[in-house]
Amino acid sequence: MAADARRMIAELRELAELTGDERGAQRLAWTDVWARAREWERGLLAELPVEVDRDEAGNVWATLAGRSPQFLIIGSHIDSVPNGGWLDGCLGVLSALEVLRALSADGSPPLTVKLVDWADEEGARFGLSLMGSMAAAGQHDPDFVSRLRDAEGVSAPDAMAAHGVDVGRMGDSSSRLKDAVGYIELHIEQGPVLEARNLPLGVVTGTYGTERWAARFTGQAAHSGSTPMDQRRDALSAAARLALEVRELARTRGGVGTVGRIAAEPGIATAVAGVATALVDQRHVDAGTLAELHEAIVSASHKIASEEGVEVQWSPLFRVAPIHFDADMVDAAGAIVTDLQGDDVRLPSGPLHDAARVAEAGVPTVMLFVRSKRGLSHTREEDTDEADLELALTALERLVKGELERRG
Amino acid sequence: MAADARRMIAELRELAELTGDERGAQRLAWTDVWARAREWERGLLAELPVEVDRDEAGNVWATLAGRSPQFLIIGSHIDSVPNGGWLDGCLGVLSALEVLRALSADGSPPLTVKLVDWADEEGARFGLSLMGSMAAAGQHDPDFVSRLRDAEGVSAPDAMAAHGVDVGRMGDSSSRLKDAVGYIELHIEQGPVLEARNLPLGVVTGTYGTERWAARFTGQAAHSGSTPMDQRRDALSAAARLALEVRELARTRGGVGTVGRIAAEPGIATAVAGVATALVDQRHVDAGTLAELHEAIVSASHKIASEEGVEVQWSPLFRVAPIHFDADMVDAAGAIVTDLQGDDVRLPSGPLHDAARVAEAGVPTVMLFVRSKRGLSHTREEDTDEADLELALTALERLVKGELERRG
Repeated sequence: MAADARRMIAELRELAELTGDERGAQRLAWTDVWARAREWERGLLAELPVEVDRDEAGNVWATLAGRSPQFLIIGSHIDSVPNGGWLDGCLGVLSALEVLRALSADGSPPLTVKLVDWADEEGARFGLSLMGSMAAAGQHDPDFVSRLRDAEGVSAPDAMAAHGVDVGRMGDSSSRLKDAVGYIELHIEQGPVLEARNLPLGVVTGTYGTERWAARFTGQAAHSGSTPMDQRRDALSAAARLALEVRELARTRGGVGTVGRIAAEPGIATAVAGVATALVDQRHVDAGTLAELHEAIVSASHKIASEEGVEVQWSPLFRVAPIHFDADMVDAAGAIVTDLQGDDVRLPSGPLHDAARVAEAGVPTVMLFVRSKRGLSHTREEDTDEADLELALTALERLVKGELERRG
Repeated sequence: MAADARRMIAELRELAELTGDERGAQRLAWTDVWARAREWERGLLAELPVEVDRDEAGNVWATLAGRSPQFLIIGSHIDSVPNGGWLDGCLGVLSALEVLRALSADGSPPLTVKLVDWADEEGARFGLSLMGSMAAAGQHDPDFVSRLRDAEGVSAPDAMAAHGVDVGRMGDSSSRLKDAVGYIELHIEQGPVLEARNLPLGVVTGTYGTERWAARFTGQAAHSGSTPMDQRRDALSAAARLALEVRELARTRGGVGTVGRIAAEPGIATAVAGVATALVDQRHVDAGTLAELHEAIVSASHKIASEEGVEVQWSPLFRVAPIHFDADMVDAAGAIVTDLQGDDVRLPSGPLHDAARVAEAGVPTVMLFVRSKRGLSHTREEDTDEADLELALTALERLVKGELERRG
């Protein structure tokens, strides 16, 4: 039996209806709406010959026993950002469910197959994304998680306990990835690359490494009326120059570089800024190039600071190394995508995904991307054509069945 | 008798002690501390043969009757910003008091001389600066002032009524400038020009005209990881380019141009900004050049917007025309300053002053600036050497006596 895209799309719309409102999806992890979504998910899984349970980190697993105890994992996350779209995360879960249905209808597969719904991919409530997959990957930091609070001041341990998760025991979920032979995740692209290429599907080769830093320029705050141009030490001008330099340096190296905010002090119309802090995000698939890009940006900031008569200080905010998905699985996915759409598209993912954590834990991993209209995500305007969703489900099903045959 | 600089400096320090704290001066207009400063001021005036009264806008006047009812005005403001310095405003009032003392000791002057202490020059509580001098200059807008509220939500009319001022009657104070033959104000420079020239005194030729606008760039918010560099419509990059362009265009025209703030939306590290608003402040002594500068900046913004694939919209925030002080009084002051320090320094003022409002009302006006250390003001670090203050008082006294002789 083949997976049924119309059923999957109907279920995605049913989920949106059940757990969204006029502003979009509202399935924030560790909330009642999220719990309702998972209860609905359990109802669908109950119709299948699978064993459903939840691990110590709150990840939901559905196991379809195969002829071997070795297992392949398919999945994604059902949680959403506030005012989110109808596909981000839940597409990966409901397409996995549909593949599970098809496999179970054909009898016992050569390997065991597990569907996973990771807990709290978005980090929208407590600011820490990939929480469930990070725990399963052996990267849980209970002290750090214990100190997290939401915007209302509720602590993460309290909110998570209300959903049956003990922060102190989350790390035990790392046993779940033992004996996993592979992990496959279908996700919307959340970017404009596939749309620009006019193709529905792409194979994700890995995730960008990220260096995120704050560059704080310190000059001299001064009256914008009484301070002649040649006597200024203008921190905002230095930050503006850096923003443009970041862009140029990232362009020439094939990565991305972004200044998403410049915070000036005093930050008023009538004062030359004495302090300006630029938030700098740099990403690249290659660790060496990423490091060199960061060095080039820092070096440019020193040159700018010297020319502007200001000081610059760099503070790290976030770092993650580039992650490369499994070469064989990427090739297998590439062959399927080529067969389905005529063109093989391979692209790195800028955003992180649960798949990156699974890959870091040593499980051979690949992701499929399906085109996002206008590259939009994390908004109710997020959308993908139904024809594209159908093709994506076909690709996922072929990829899973191919891996089961290859490894069975 | 000559004015006594040591007494003036001692009184300035006494005022600072009485109405300041470890963070600086706290004489916000329409507060108890301000009222205490004015009560102290009245105590000093009571020792002189002057008539003291307050006009409908809360400005304090002390009249030394001369042989003619025509009068010359000397003064400034005793209110301060929060955490202000020991000289901003009160130097002009206490130097005028010292000159009044010297004049009254010598008998009746040829013209009547009035000291003025303008109410609420700083606008620190309600956001509207030059409130008292604006009313005296016939520019009071009762509807506008009635709608002002402070940070705690207290309305301006309520706060001002507690200090005996009826917002509806403030405009009546405009009778006070009738028959005025001149206005002279001594003020600290609040900028770095005199210090850079290594000279204590300067003659102010007028005040810059100002155009203050918000330039709002609208592109497309996008994920900083998933959006390739060539598919971005980055509003912050456009605003950064404008900030640098404003600086360049102001430089080449001899005025000043400042972007003191760039507000990005969403304004986070992980998003290309969809919206970025730059606050642009442009000043020039020449009205034509100021208008041309603004046009050049707007034109540059359109070029940038087009190149960056974003939109730009300009909204006016504040406009004031350049004001030119009286040529004869400027020349007279220039001769005195040259005699005292060997060099004639003439400079426009970037910040507005009460003197600008008086000049707009048609009263021949001039200001003297005395050097500010490091150009600092509106901070407790504001300072001027005592030797400079002494020279400034001498210049003011000579200028007042010269004007009385010339016009008497």
